[in-house]
Amino acid sequence: MNNDLCKKLGIESPIFAFTHCRDVVVEVSKAGGLGVLGAVGFTVEQLKAELDWIDAHIGDKPYAVDIVIPQKYEGMGETDVDTMREQLETLIPDGHRIFAEQLLTAHGVPKSPDDNGPKGGLQGWTEATALPLLREALTRKNVVMIANALGTPPVDIIEEIHATGRLVGALCGKVKQALSHKKAGVDIIIAQGTEGGGHTGEIGSLVLWPQIIDAVGDTPVLAAGGIGDGRQMAAAMCLGAAGVWTGSLWLAVEEAEADPAEKASYFNATSEDTVRSRSWTGKPCRMLKSDWTEAWAAEDTPDPLGMPMQGMVTFDAVKRTKNYAGVADTQKVAFNPVGQTVGLINQQESCRQVVFRLLNEYADSVERINSFLEDA
Amino acid sequence: MNNDLCKKLGIESPIFAFTHCRDVVVEVSKAGGLGVLGAVGFTVEQLKAELDWIDAHIGDKPYAVDIVIPQKYEGMGETDVDTMREQLETLIPDGHRIFAEQLLTAHGVPKSPDDNGPKGGLQGWTEATALPLLREALTRKNVVMIANALGTPPVDIIEEIHATGRLVGALCGKVKQALSHKKAGVDIIIAQGTEGGGHTGEIGSLVLWPQIIDAVGDTPVLAAGGIGDGRQMAAAMCLGAAGVWTGSLWLAVEEAEADPAEKASYFNATSEDTVRSRSWTGKPCRMLKSDWTEAWAAEDTPDPLGMPMQGMVTFDAVKRTKNYAGVADTQKVAFNPVGQTVGLINQQESCRQVVFRLLNEYADSVERINSFLEDA
Repeated sequence: MNNDLCKKLGIESPIFAFTHCRDVVVEVSKAGGLGVLGAVGFTVEQLKAELDWIDAHIGDKPYAVDIVIPQKYEGMGETDVDTMREQLETLIPDGHRIFAEQLLTAHGVPKSPDDNGPKGGLQGWTEATALPLLREALTRKNVVMIANALGTPPVDIIEEIHATGRLVGALCGKVKQALSHKKAGVDIIIAQGTEGGGHTGEIGSLVLWPQIIDAVGDTPVLAAGGIGDGRQMAAAMCLGAAGVWTGSLWLAVEEAEADPAEKASYFNATSEDTVRSRSWTGKPCRMLKSDWTEAWAAEDTPDPLGMPMQGMVTFDAVKRTKNYAGVADTQKVAFNPVGQTVGLINQQESCRQVVFRLLNEYADSVERINSFLEDA
Repeated sequence: MNNDLCKKLGIESPIFAFTHCRDVVVEVSKAGGLGVLGAVGFTVEQLKAELDWIDAHIGDKPYAVDIVIPQKYEGMGETDVDTMREQLETLIPDGHRIFAEQLLTAHGVPKSPDDNGPKGGLQGWTEATALPLLREALTRKNVVMIANALGTPPVDIIEEIHATGRLVGALCGKVKQALSHKKAGVDIIIAQGTEGGGHTGEIGSLVLWPQIIDAVGDTPVLAAGGIGDGRQMAAAMCLGAAGVWTGSLWLAVEEAEADPAEKASYFNATSEDTVRSRSWTGKPCRMLKSDWTEAWAAEDTPDPLGMPMQGMVTFDAVKRTKNYAGVADTQKVAFNPVGQTVGLINQQESCRQVVFRLLNEYADSVERINSFLEDA
């Protein structure tokens, strides 16, 4: 399979794999897709180390980096990170951190040895913190695309990326956002339906994709939200997508660096076990339902704050639930963003197996749909 | 296009059109699809008149009738309708009817001349009220299928329908429900994703359909929820569906008996303008967002009752908003069930035009997906 977008990016199959694991980036790109490293959770130093490792293992294959510059957040416009952090701290009621800590303690989640307190909380969820990550990514020659996970990137940033010869992608969940992306100069629109894991909207993929494809004309659209096998990929291509943007599919592969308890939580989950919740990042994000999501949604508990404050409240909890995934009842309060397609993920495969399975299932679907016409 | 299911039902294209309008039933069946008359809103006398009209106009074409026997509702097991109504009346607080009346008055919706009070409220939403509708439908020779819109039909009812030589279809929004349908003897599973209008679940179509198709093996599955054009139909067939079940698509066609103000509300709506709400029937039902849905969701207003009581509360409002669709602010409190695909419905066409457009778009999609493979 091949199309213009594949040629432009130097890939064989338009399968884009969003992941936080460097191993998955490398293996998907080597299998002919495009690995996309989600950078938001890393400090600049950590990102540098990850990209060094990828560059040392990926050969001449291309890859992409995903950053987060939200359209709207508290503290927007402040470019000094420490000043921003201080301002945001004043907006966080004590009760929120106490409530989070109580939930972790009640579920037996151990303390972090390297607890760096509230200072650690401001991740790459703002322009000020995302820019250094972006600039590190732009030093790498195999990075062919930068994606923005939330909202339209500022025009000057798009121009900065274009000036280095890379393409810019951006996610969206509404037609209006897609048009705003296109107007700003985004090269690849990633249309994500409500089924998707992570930050996501309310419109189903089947209804969202064709409307965005119609709206943006010749700008290529990647179909995101609900892609768990090659049948769904074929459906996306039927609807006019130029490729598929996948995430959940890579959470439990062999190469994914995750505790077996975390992987088991995906294998065991059905599509009904996810929920859109503001309880971790402050914006609606689809994840496994848990004691955590239910506790923050209950009537007599604190309401989640906005982005990035809620992320500052939960920073420690994200780390601890990740690091102690197999300990006590950690999985019941763990941050496990995943889409509804988790119901289709029932066994561990390698990245290469997943890519080839998708292509085989895709071919079978094309054959199936052709046979209907032949029968007529 | 043709497949086993088409042959079994005597139709040319597996396009199932759910509608409350007899004209639409006739025109879709004449265009080669299968018109499905939703019977729940009719008394037996009214249904008889509608079916007489259809039988007089449809020639030798087949059609279907859709009834509602919910899996669970208050008053289950009671077979005497008057007794059930009396029991249910005691469960309805006065405040609910007063609140509904206030909303209508505030929006200038005129009173019904034939207001028959609470007695009219118990529609075909129960086994006791649905059975007479079903039996009327089974007297019609061109009825080839009976569908149940909510839950698995009781086994004795399935057997009664089978004994007359008709097929039984049933809607579902979860894999578990699909398996229950199959076990009970349902012939055609209608898998409806969250995008769909009317009573609907939370799983997106793209994720739901393939899981249900895998789960029920050789039982044919119709894809419902989000089908507004032929690209989406092609996507559904790629995923293994035997056909598509559509509803929103027929709300504003030329033949649909609806006030221009109601049709305009669909043409003007985007996919973001629908909401799942319990405010009309008591079960989550997707419809246009309105002052009505917002009022019932507000914090200091009555919580919607269960089915069928909420329907008894709103019976008069459904009729009045339908009959006075163009008067004053009626559209702001009207009951307009529709799916997210309403964003794709922007102009009035005839039923025949819609059927042929779907088939053309379907063929274009098949051509598009084949061209990806040829380019390789």
